[in-house]
Amino acid sequence: MRDYIKKDPWNIIEEGFDPALNRISESIFSIGNGKMGQRANFEEKYSGNSLRGSYVAGVYYPDKTRVGWWKNGYPEYFAKVLNATNWIGINVNVDGEELDLATASVANFKRVLNMQEGLLQRSFVATLASGKQIEVQSTRFTSIVDTDNAVIRYTVKALNFSGKLSFTPLLDLNVVNQDSNYDEQFWVEISRTAETGSAAITGETKKTAFHVATAFSLSLEIDGAPQALQAEPVSKEKFVANVVHVDIAQGQSVSLIKYVAVISSLYAEKATIQTTAQASAAAAQAKGYEQMLSEQRAAWAKKWAECDITIEGDVAAQQAIRFNILQMNQTYTGEDERLNIGPKGFTGEKYGGVTYWDTEAYCLPFYLKTADPKVARQLLVYRYKHLGRAIENAAKLGFKHGAALYPMVTINGEECHNEWEITFEEIHRNGAMSFAIYNYINHTGDVGYLAEYGLEVLIAISRFWRQRVQWSDRRNGYIMLGVTGPNEYENNVNNNWYTNLLAQWTLNYTRESLAQVKASDPVRYAEIVAKTQLGGHEDEETIWADVAAKIVLPVDAPTGVFIQHDGFMDKELLPMSAIPKGEYPIHKNWSWDRILRSCYIKQADVLQGIYTFEANYDKETLKKNFDFYEPLTVHESSLSPCIHSILASSLGYEDLAYKFYLRTARLDLDDYNHDTDDGLHITSMAGTWMSVVEGFGGVRVQQGVLHLNPSLPKQWQGYSFRITFRGALLKVTVSSGSIMIENESDVGLSLQLTGAEKQVAARQILTVAR
Amino acid sequence: MRDYIKKDPWNIIEEGFDPALNRISESIFSIGNGKMGQRANFEEKYSGNSLRGSYVAGVYYPDKTRVGWWKNGYPEYFAKVLNATNWIGINVNVDGEELDLATASVANFKRVLNMQEGLLQRSFVATLASGKQIEVQSTRFTSIVDTDNAVIRYTVKALNFSGKLSFTPLLDLNVVNQDSNYDEQFWVEISRTAETGSAAITGETKKTAFHVATAFSLSLEIDGAPQALQAEPVSKEKFVANVVHVDIAQGQSVSLIKYVAVISSLYAEKATIQTTAQASAAAAQAKGYEQMLSEQRAAWAKKWAECDITIEGDVAAQQAIRFNILQMNQTYTGEDERLNIGPKGFTGEKYGGVTYWDTEAYCLPFYLKTADPKVARQLLVYRYKHLGRAIENAAKLGFKHGAALYPMVTINGEECHNEWEITFEEIHRNGAMSFAIYNYINHTGDVGYLAEYGLEVLIAISRFWRQRVQWSDRRNGYIMLGVTGPNEYENNVNNNWYTNLLAQWTLNYTRESLAQVKASDPVRYAEIVAKTQLGGHEDEETIWADVAAKIVLPVDAPTGVFIQHDGFMDKELLPMSAIPKGEYPIHKNWSWDRILRSCYIKQADVLQGIYTFEANYDKETLKKNFDFYEPLTVHESSLSPCIHSILASSLGYEDLAYKFYLRTARLDLDDYNHDTDDGLHITSMAGTWMSVVEGFGGVRVQQGVLHLNPSLPKQWQGYSFRITFRGALLKVTVSSGSIMIENESDVGLSLQLTGAEKQVAARQILTVAR
Repeated sequence: MRDYIKKDPWNIIEEGFDPALNRISESIFSIGNGKMGQRANFEEKYSGNSLRGSYVAGVYYPDKTRVGWWKNGYPEYFAKVLNATNWIGINVNVDGEELDLATASVANFKRVLNMQEGLLQRSFVATLASGKQIEVQSTRFTSIVDTDNAVIRYTVKALNFSGKLSFTPLLDLNVVNQDSNYDEQFWVEISRTAETGSAAITGETKKTAFHVATAFSLSLEIDGAPQALQAEPVSKEKFVANVVHVDIAQGQSVSLIKYVAVISSLYAEKATIQTTAQASAAAAQAKGYEQMLSEQRAAWAKKWAECDITIEGDVAAQQAIRFNILQMNQTYTGEDERLNIGPKGFTGEKYGGVTYWDTEAYCLPFYLKTADPKVARQLLVYRYKHLGRAIENAAKLGFKHGAALYPMVTINGEECHNEWEITFEEIHRNGAMSFAIYNYINHTGDVGYLAEYGLEVLIAISRFWRQRVQWSDRRNGYIMLGVTGPNEYENNVNNNWYTNLLAQWTLNYTRESLAQVKASDPVRYAEIVAKTQLGGHEDEETIWADVAAKIVLPVDAPTGVFIQHDGFMDKELLPMSAIPKGEYPIHKNWSWDRILRSCYIKQADVLQGIYTFEANYDKETLKKNFDFYEPLTVHESSLSPCIHSILASSLGYEDLAYKFYLRTARLDLDDYNHDTDDGLHITSMAGTWMSVVEGFGGVRVQQGVLHLNPSLPKQWQGYSFRITFRGALLKVTVSSGSIMIENESDVGLSLQLTGAEKQVAARQILTVAR
Repeated sequence: MRDYIKKDPWNIIEEGFDPALNRISESIFSIGNGKMGQRANFEEKYSGNSLRGSYVAGVYYPDKTRVGWWKNGYPEYFAKVLNATNWIGINVNVDGEELDLATASVANFKRVLNMQEGLLQRSFVATLASGKQIEVQSTRFTSIVDTDNAVIRYTVKALNFSGKLSFTPLLDLNVVNQDSNYDEQFWVEISRTAETGSAAITGETKKTAFHVATAFSLSLEIDGAPQALQAEPVSKEKFVANVVHVDIAQGQSVSLIKYVAVISSLYAEKATIQTTAQASAAAAQAKGYEQMLSEQRAAWAKKWAECDITIEGDVAAQQAIRFNILQMNQTYTGEDERLNIGPKGFTGEKYGGVTYWDTEAYCLPFYLKTADPKVARQLLVYRYKHLGRAIENAAKLGFKHGAALYPMVTINGEECHNEWEITFEEIHRNGAMSFAIYNYINHTGDVGYLAEYGLEVLIAISRFWRQRVQWSDRRNGYIMLGVTGPNEYENNVNNNWYTNLLAQWTLNYTRESLAQVKASDPVRYAEIVAKTQLGGHEDEETIWADVAAKIVLPVDAPTGVFIQHDGFMDKELLPMSAIPKGEYPIHKNWSWDRILRSCYIKQADVLQGIYTFEANYDKETLKKNFDFYEPLTVHESSLSPCIHSILASSLGYEDLAYKFYLRTARLDLDDYNHDTDDGLHITSMAGTWMSVVEGFGGVRVQQGVLHLNPSLPKQWQGYSFRITFRGALLKVTVSSGSIMIENESDVGLSLQLTGAEKQVAARQILTVAR
C-alpha cells in the first residue's frame, strides 16, 4: 500500500517526481474514450522505467499460448489487445540538449487527472545539464465527443535563456507488447507519409490483419498567438515525425498542439484508412483546441450528471469513487457491440485486454444503473453475436445439439485462456451469461430482448447444463463433476454449490422464458424452435425441469450452511486470522498445492450465489452462510470484497461492510496489491460502485421494482448517488437525519423505500426521515 | 500400429527404404552404451524427414518452462538432456554428386539392429542422378567395453563407374533440440582442431557449463587393405571435418573407419578435455576395428548370458523381448550413480531424458533380477545423493523439519515438471522411493544399505507424509487432500487409495527400519538420530504409528472394492467398451475436462497398490478389485498393461494376461501408439520384461525368498528366462510338460517352486513336471 496521491474531490494529483512510482502513475493517470486508451506516459523522451501503452479497442493479436503440456481441447492462442502506434510522442530539444526527466533535474512536478473534465495535465520545471531551465505544461485528452481524436497541448517556457527549441512530434510503430509470449513483434508497417505540419502511419497486425492508421496535424503558438509552422518531415521505417524549429526568447512560452486521429479497420475501409485518419486529424485541427476542450467539458458534465456519487466528510472516499466512475466510463461507452471490457481496460497489458465474466457479473450492474439501457444491451448483444462460437467451443469439448459454453476469456468469441482448470472447468461463467439476460430485463423492462436475442442464448446454455450433469443413483440426484467455482483457490471439484445453483436457475428461467415468448410472440417462438431444433432429439423442457428439480445442492447437517463443494467440509477449517503474519497474501507466499488443499477462499463463492439470488434466501440463511464463509475468505481477487461488503450491509454488519468497502475503494490509488503498475483493476471498480449503491444505498431491483434501503457508514456525514431506472434519473442523498430522493427526469416512479411503497413524481423531491 | 519390421529372433530388420518410416526407424534402431546414445540417423547427408539425435549421459540444459500462468512454487526450468555434437556424419561425394537418400534412387536397402552383438548395420545400392551406382555398407556401434568410444565402418563400392570419391567425416556442433521451448541454441563452442586424419571439437552448454569434447581418428581401406589417408582438414564455426579423397575403380570397395570419442566433463578435466578425447579416439584407432568388434561381441554375449529370455513358437514375441532387454542395457549400466534412466532413454527428446518414478517402480525390478546388485544400488544411491534437494523441494512447498519430497521429474534432484497437478500433487512418487529401498534389500539381502543410506531417506519421506495428512474429526481418521494418483486422468483428488497406502506403508517401514538399525548398528543409529534430529520437535515415531494406524483407506460398501479416491464412486462407471469406436485413445479424442470427469483410468492405480503389496491381499480381494477396475482402465500410459498382465496371471486369467502382454511387448517395434518416431518407451520395456518374469514366470521375492510359479501362455510352446538372485544365476525353462531350473552359478539356492520348497544346488539342474 502507498499513499502518494493527493486527496481532492475532483482531481487525482501527484506532486513531485519519483521515478520509482512512475509506472504506477502511468496506470493511474490513464485516459481513454472507449475507442482508445492511453497510459500516462510522458510525451517527451523518457529513458527511465516505463510501460508505454497506447491501445485501440478491438484490435488484437492471437499470441501463441504457453502451456506446460498441451492436451486435447486446449486453446491454440491467447488473444491480446496490442500496444499500438505511440501517438503521444513529442521529443523536446533545447540548443541540442534532449529533455529527459530521467536525466534532467526536475522541480515542481505535478501530474493531475482532472476527472470532472476528462483531462490529463502535467507541469514541471526541468534544469538541463547546461543549466538551462524550462517550464513545461501539457494537457491531453482523448475526446469523448470526437472519439477518433485525441489532442495534446504541450507548452515550453524558457526560464533563464534564449535559444533554439525544437519539438519532434512523432508517430512510432516500433512497439512491442511486454507480455508477448515469444518476444514477437505484432505489427507490420503498411504505409506512412510525412509532410510539414502533418504525418500519418498505418500498421497491420500479423495474423489478424487489423489496420490502424494514426495521423497528426500540428499547430504552433508563441505566448498564445498562432504561428506559422517551420518543420522538417521525417519518415523512416515504422516512424514518422516533424522536427519543428522555434527560436525561443527568455520568458517566452511556445506551445505545440498535436491533433491526433487513431482509426482502426473496425471503422474504416483499409484501402483509404490512412487518408481517413489524416482527414480526421485535420478536422480536429480545424475545430481547434479550445472548441474540442469545451465540448469535452460539456460531455463529461453530462456523464457526471447521470452517475456521480458524492461523499461528505471523507475526501479520500470521494476521490476514489469518482476515480472508479471515471475509469469505467473511459473504458466502455456501449457504442459498439463488438467491444467489451478487459479487466485492466486500456491501462495495461495484463489479462490481454480481453473479456471475462467480470463483464456480466460486475460491469453490467454498473451500466444498468448509470447509463441508457442501450449501453448494457450492447454488452448482451456482444455475447449473442458470439453464440455460434460458444456452440463451437462446447462442441470441441464433446457437447452436442447446440449446447453452448461461453469462453472464460475471449475477444472474438473463441476461448483463449490457457489453464485447463479455468478454461474447461470454470463453467459457472455460462450462468453469468444467462443471469445477465434476466438482470437486464429486470432492470429495463425490455422484455422484447428475450424474443429478439435472449432466448436463443438461454436454450443453448440450458443444453450445456443438461449435458454437463449426470444422474447419480448413489446421490439420488443430478451431480456435476470436475468444475472450478468462483473460488479459483480450488480446482476440479465436484458439485460446486454456486455452479449447480446457476445451472438450476438457468434451466428454470429458460423454461419460463420459453413460455413467455410462446405467449407473447408465437411467430418468433416458432422461428426460434425451428432454428434451435428445440425438442428435436429429446423432450428438452421436461428433462430440464427434472434436472433443475433434482440437482444436488447439499446443506451441511452440523452447520446448516450450503456446502461449497463435495469435499469442502473435510478441510481443516481455520479462519483467515490463523494465517501467520508475513504469509499473506497466500498466493505470493504459499505453494499452489498448499493453497488448493487449504480452506481459504479466493473470492466469494457460496456467498456470490446468495448475493445473486438474495431474494430467495431469508436473513437467517444469509447470516449463517456469511458467518461461516466470511472468515475463510482471503479476497485475493479484487472482485471479492465488494460482494462481502454488500452482504454485510444487508446483515447490518456496518463495520465489516465499511472494512470491505475500503479494501476496494482505493485499490489502485493506494496501490494496495502492489500491482497497479501493470494497469488498473477496471472491472473491480464496478464492484466498488456496487458496494456504495447496492451496499450502503441498499438498491435492489426485484420483480422490476426499485428498492432502496440506505444506511450511512458512520465514517461519512452523508453521501449521494445517482441511478437511472426505467427512464427516470434519481439522485439519492443520504444524511444522518434523512433520505432525499430527487427525480431529475420527466418520468415518475413508484419505488420501495426502506420497505414502504413511495411515489416520486417527475422533477419532484421526496424526503423521508431516517 | 505398423508391421514393417521383419521378424527374427536376434535381429531387428527393415528391408526397403520408406522415407515415411524413417523417423520411426531412427528410434527403433538406436544404439547406446549407458554413457552415450545415438539415434539411427544416416551417416551421409539426408535432406528428408529426420530427428537427429546424439545424446551424452548426464549433460543437460535447464530450459525455461512454459506455463500458462506462473504460480508460487512452480519450477523455473525443465531440464533436458541435449542433442550434442553430431559424431556420425560422413558425407559422401561421387564425382561432385552428393549422396542423399532423399534424392537418390535407392535399392536393396536394409537396416539391421544386431541385438546379439550390439551393432547397427545398414546396406543399400544408390543410383545417383548421373546414373552412377554405389553400394554402401555401414556398421556402427557404441562400445560397451570402451564406453567413451564409438566406431563406424563405412564402405562404398563403385558398381558401374570409376571416378573420384570423397568422404567428409565430420563433427558438427550446430545442433539444436527440436523441443527447445523458445528455440534457443544450447551450445557454445569452446575449441576445435582439425588435422589430416583427426579432428576434435568441444562445446559448452549454456547455463550448466558442461563441456563435451568429441574427436575422431580415421583409417582408410581399399578392398580391405589399409591405405595412407589423403585428407584436407576443415575447420569452421562449430564444425570440424576431413575431406578424404580417393580414386575409386569400378568394382572396388573403399572403407572409411571413423573411430570416435565422446567425453563429457563428468569424466574429464575441462582444461584438457579435448586432448583427452583426441587421445581416446587415437587409442581406439590403435586397438583397431576388428579388435573392438570382437570385444563388443564378447561383452554382449556375457550380458545375454545373464538376462536372455527365449520364447519358443512365437518369433515376434522372441524378437520383442530381446529388443526390450537390449534397449534397457543400452540405456543404463549402473556404472555411475549420477546417471539415471529417462523414459525415452537416449532415443529421442521427449520427456527431456530426465528421471521419473518409472525408475523405481519399473526399471529397478528389472536390474534387481538381471544384473549385479550394485547396478540397482546405484539407482538408489542416485536418490540418496538428491536427498538434500528433496528436502529443499519440500521446504519450498511449506514442509518443515527435514521432510523430503522427491521430484516428479529431475536430472539433478531439483523438480522441473511444469504442470502443478503433477509437480505438486503426484506425490505417490515419494512412496516409490521408499518402497525401492525395501525392494532392493528384500532382493539382495543387503541390509547394510539401510544404515548406510536408506534410513535417512525413509525418515525424510515419513516426515513428509506425516505433515501432508491432516486429522479429520468427520472422517475419524487422517486424510490426504489434493493429490494426483498414478491415474493422471484425474487430478487434485482426495484420499487416493494408492497414495494413502504408500504413506501408511512407509511410516510403518521406517519405524521397523529404525528399530532394526538401532539393534544392529547402534553407533550409526545414534549418528542418524543426531543428523536428522529425529524426535527433536515432536515424538515422531509415535505420531507416525498413529497416522499409519488411522489413515483412511476406505472400502466401498456396495462393491467391496478399495475406493480409488473420495469422489470416484460418484462417477458414471461405464466399461471401456462403452467408449464409441473412433474415440479411442481418449487422450487424442476427448477434451481434457471430459477425461477428468470420466471414470476412465489412464494407468493402474488401486491395482498398482495391490500389485506392490500383493502378499498382503488374498486372491478374493485381488479378484474383486481387478474385476472392478480392469474394465475401467484404458492403459493410455505404456506403464499400465504390464501390471494388469501380471495380476491377470496371478488370477489365472490367462487370455487377459496374454492380451495385456501383447500390448506392451511390441509397443515400439509395431509403433502401436503412433509415437515411436519421438523415441522408444524405454522404461515401459522394463514392464514388459516384468510381465514375462513376474507374470508368466510367477517370480516373486517374499521375505527374502525367491518364489516361482510359472504358467505357459497357450500361444507359446515354451520359454525360458534368466534371473540373478543373491549370487545365484538361474535359467528357468518352462515347457508344456515341465519346469526346468538350471543353476548356472556356484551358489546354491533354496526357493519356493509352485508352492513347494526346493533346493537348487550350484551348477545343478532341477526339473519338475507341470
